[in-house]
Amino acid sequence: MSHDDCIFCKIIAGDIPSAKVYEDEKVYAFLDISQVTKGHTLVIPKQHTKNIFETPPEVAKELFERIPTIANAIKNTYKPLGMNLLNNNGEAAEQSVFHLHIHLIPRYGDGDGYTPNWKTHQDDYAFDELQQIAKEIEQAIQ
Amino acid sequence: MSHDDCIFCKIIAGDIPSAKVYEDEKVYAFLDISQVTKGHTLVIPKQHTKNIFETPPEVAKELFERIPTIANAIKNTYKPLGMNLLNNNGEAAEQSVFHLHIHLIPRYGDGDGYTPNWKTHQDDYAFDELQQIAKEIEQAIQ
Repeated sequence: MSHDDCIFCKIIAGDIPSAKVYEDEKVYAFLDISQVTKGHTLVIPKQHTKNIFETPPEVAKELFERIPTIANAIKNTYKPLGMNLLNNNGEAAEQSVFHLHIHLIPRYGDGDGYTPNWKTHQDDYAFDELQQIAKEIEQAIQ
Repeated sequence: MSHDDCIFCKIIAGDIPSAKVYEDEKVYAFLDISQVTKGHTLVIPKQHTKNIFETPPEVAKELFERIPTIANAIKNTYKPLGMNLLNNNGEAAEQSVFHLHIHLIPRYGDGDGYTPNWKTHQDDYAFDELQQIAKEIEQAIQ
């Protein structure tokens, strides 16, 4: 269940100190040591799972069930204007610790440190092309 | 349950066409018309809820329970190198449709269109300051 070489498993076990925000039998939440904005929190399952692809639906469910409560606690404490939730899977998606984690990043306005910067490709796909992509994915759902 | 002025409620109802990827009694998934990368999918609860703060834990749970399955279907179809999950809450966090939605953004390597660009503030907080922030949030958890 716990992985010897996983820093987040060590945090859950108390072998590495963390600024804990929340804990129950399934979920652990603590401040990201690299605070993108004040109150930036990581929510993780106690059961070690590498990324969203390898996460059992039961673990995903239990993890996300706690998120509204934790998000509201951050909101009520620091009165952010908004909040981004972010989860990175794979090095190509900037995952750096390979234990599933959801970032809760409170937002305080322009220049607060978080600048999602995405380029969309709306003009690249006609609607029938979107339908084709959707069908391909749908067929892959077991 | 459904909101008359909500574009996503209209998509769920079939009043606005969408490139549907998945549907069950609780959850609906479809391609974002603005494809950040190929296969960029939105997963939403059928029950209208504005953002993560107003989402009942039960709805959050049911929503995220489906995510590993949908993420793996995208992965198996287009073989991305990774995937980002993103959820924006509030205009200050770039939310543009006010019905809770999780972006699943497959990643194909540098220049694929998605560039999360965050500045961290690791040097700004000593560990005892992190502990203080964590305690403030923890105390706000009901």
